[in-house]
Amino acid sequence: MLFHPYSIMKTISEKKPLVHHITNWVTIYDCANITRAFGALPVMAHAEEEASDMTGIASSLVLNIGTLTTPLIKSMLLSGKKANEKGIPILLDAVGAGATPFRTEKSRQLLSELKIDILKGNAGEIATLAGATAEVRGVESMGVEGDSKELAKKLAVQQNCTVVITGKEDIISSPTEAYSVKNGNSMMGSVVGTGCMAASIIASFASVEKNHAQAAASALSCFGIASELASQKSTGPGSFKEKLYDEVSLLDESKVSSLLKVEKIV
Amino acid sequence: MLFHPYSIMKTISEKKPLVHHITNWVTIYDCANITRAFGALPVMAHAEEEASDMTGIASSLVLNIGTLTTPLIKSMLLSGKKANEKGIPILLDAVGAGATPFRTEKSRQLLSELKIDILKGNAGEIATLAGATAEVRGVESMGVEGDSKELAKKLAVQQNCTVVITGKEDIISSPTEAYSVKNGNSMMGSVVGTGCMAASIIASFASVEKNHAQAAASALSCFGIASELASQKSTGPGSFKEKLYDEVSLLDESKVSSLLKVEKIV
Amino acid sequence: MLFHPYSIMKTISEKKPLVHHITNWVTIYDCANITRAFGALPVMAHAEEEASDMTGIASSLVLNIGTLTTPLIKSMLLSGKKANEKGIPILLDAVGAGATPFRTEKSRQLLSELKIDILKGNAGEIATLAGATAEVRGVESMGVEGDSKELAKKLAVQQNCTVVITGKEDIISSPTEAYSVKNGNSMMGSVVGTGCMAASIIASFASVEKNHAQAAASALSCFGIASELASQKSTGPGSFKEKLYDEVSLLDESKVSSLLKVEKIV
Repeated sequence: MLFHPYSIMKTISEKKPLVHHITNWVTIYDCANITRAFGALPVMAHAEEEASDMTGIASSLVLNIGTLTTPLIKSMLLSGKKANEKGIPILLDAVGAGATPFRTEKSRQLLSELKIDILKGNAGEIATLAGATAEVRGVESMGVEGDSKELAKKLAVQQNCTVVITGKEDIISSPTEAYSVKNGNSMMGSVVGTGCMAASIIASFASVEKNHAQAAASALSCFGIASELASQKSTGPGSFKEKLYDEVSLLDESKVSSLLKVEKIV
Repeated sequence: MLFHPYSIMKTISEKKPLVHHITNWVTIYDCANITRAFGALPVMAHAEEEASDMTGIASSLVLNIGTLTTPLIKSMLLSGKKANEKGIPILLDAVGAGATPFRTEKSRQLLSELKIDILKGNAGEIATLAGATAEVRGVESMGVEGDSKELAKKLAVQQNCTVVITGKEDIISSPTEAYSVKNGNSMMGSVVGTGCMAASIIASFASVEKNHAQAAASALSCFGIASELASQKSTGPGSFKEKLYDEVSLLDESKVSSLLKVEKIV
Repeated sequence: MLFHPYSIMKTISEKKPLVHHITNWVTIYDCANITRAFGALPVMAHAEEEASDMTGIASSLVLNIGTLTTPLIKSMLLSGKKANEKGIPILLDAVGAGATPFRTEKSRQLLSELKIDILKGNAGEIATLAGATAEVRGVESMGVEGDSKELAKKLAVQQNCTVVITGKEDIISSPTEAYSVKNGNSMMGSVVGTGCMAASIIASFASVEKNHAQAAASALSCFGIASELASQKSTGPGSFKEKLYDEVSLLDESKVSSLLKVEKIV
């Protein structure tokens, strides 16, 4: 093993890092709860008067454009500049990039004005930002042109960051290494919010692990394993969401090691 | 049978229509999740810079004034005009009309500046918009003067739309036909959000069924049946909400046909 | 017994008071649902055009600064002035006071421009507002200088209000009396939102019980008892949250009397 997802989880629980979110109004509640379930402390402070101050006491920053507005983008830039100054990781979740020009442009603006450490999206969103052709219906990827692994690598090099493409197989690529995560299952698509939750979890892991590609692969495998265990105890999307939180809190070294499906692909 | 609720559900799952919401911050999460549980794709994009563009790729539009503000109303008008141009159905959920002058006026403005296809509310909200006397305490109907069926019909003719009054008995009236739905149960009132969820479900059904009165009756009966099944497995509002999602995902032709309580009343 | 928590709960169910919230976007859904579970009617109306009108038909007002912005503070002041005019109780939940200057200043502004009846926070938030040294990491109290009971009393006298400090032991102090509540358990900290929910519950109790210290102690003991019962049936934070709602709805006189851990300390 190159890295140990569960040991990062333990570090999170010990250090209780503050993960600042400027995020969307649909899944804000799930993002806060899953951050808490993984042992970190979530906080959401989007007013321009305090966004930067809150980032000043945080250990990582999540920027999620799921219900972006112009004032929210302004606060994201203020927070992002503070995060860059402090040297804490920023994760950008490019929710819906490609679905409207506004989302695509604002994602590009954030990428251009800030040093984004981890860029996350589904295949369609990442393909859009890599300049490839893709169909994004609302916040769902309906198909892309080109190979996701190559797109991730290209964008990682171009932006000098770690790129995460979530899907049936998750792809994580930094400029120098890449991982594939095959944990998780189809129930995750039956509920809203698992993509946004994944962003919060990755940011929690990145707040205590400097290798962001390994932090992201660890986060997605732990989340995927909890999802597999939860789906076995579920009878539909309602019980799945409930059990997902329980299974995260019940993860241990032995479950994670025995169920882990992470592969180094570069 | 005049219409087949479950066959509409199947069509939704096959076509995965995008249902654009400009909605409130209290139940936005439930609206997104229930839309997904019924097989459609929810999206929420309320910024005026993109509201119209997102509607441009959607199959129906939900306008819910539960936590309305002036900027939200502006985005509702922009989205609504695009929906009217495209010919996709708009559902207005007049949450709290009658409780404050602002809600009543803004509901009237939306009804006057847009072609609303489906107008939904509880008895008090609809009575307010029909010009009758009603008491609306916050977002709850506390009593109305006059017969709900007549009020629904009057407003349907006046606005040339389908009017839906939710309650113990749901009333659906277009200018030419009317239905009563008696599915559902009292547990739906023990949790917040079932009214807003009903709006999302009706819009999902209307995105694939052009007879909006039948779409609404089908949506409310399927939702009500899932609620009846969920309440049998619940011990309170927490487990009811969880089971409600599960039971929606477990609906099938046989459950819907055997439990359906829809009556054509006009 | 000096007071009877369950009898207040029964009064709430009978009178169905409207509890107006201007609150945060993270836990707004939980605040609405828990208010409903305790038998009151929640409403959230934050637009400056209607905030005061909605307060005009309400029985109590919750101001929660969890995701405050300048427009929200304006609406809080408008609503608060109406509540003061009408003589209905205002509860201020000072979420994150001490974490950023903006939160501390705006809490102080609300306390100075409005007659706040109940001021609630964790130990760090209340210590900050009492002028003591405290560390608030996001919305979590990480430690305070000084004795919480004395700080609560000092602030209660200074502001002529009831001060509530939530924590492992809850402290409630009015200028003339004080209570300690030891109901509740550690699962409450494993999920997001229990602090905000507590505020909604206290406001529901205060809307029908004029002794606000007794209303708060009753509210926190009932909520804590439901939490103890829920944790016995839970396997993690997901099932705990679900069971918490169920157990609130299943509270009765005998459970509350036998499990009550309230002490008059002044």
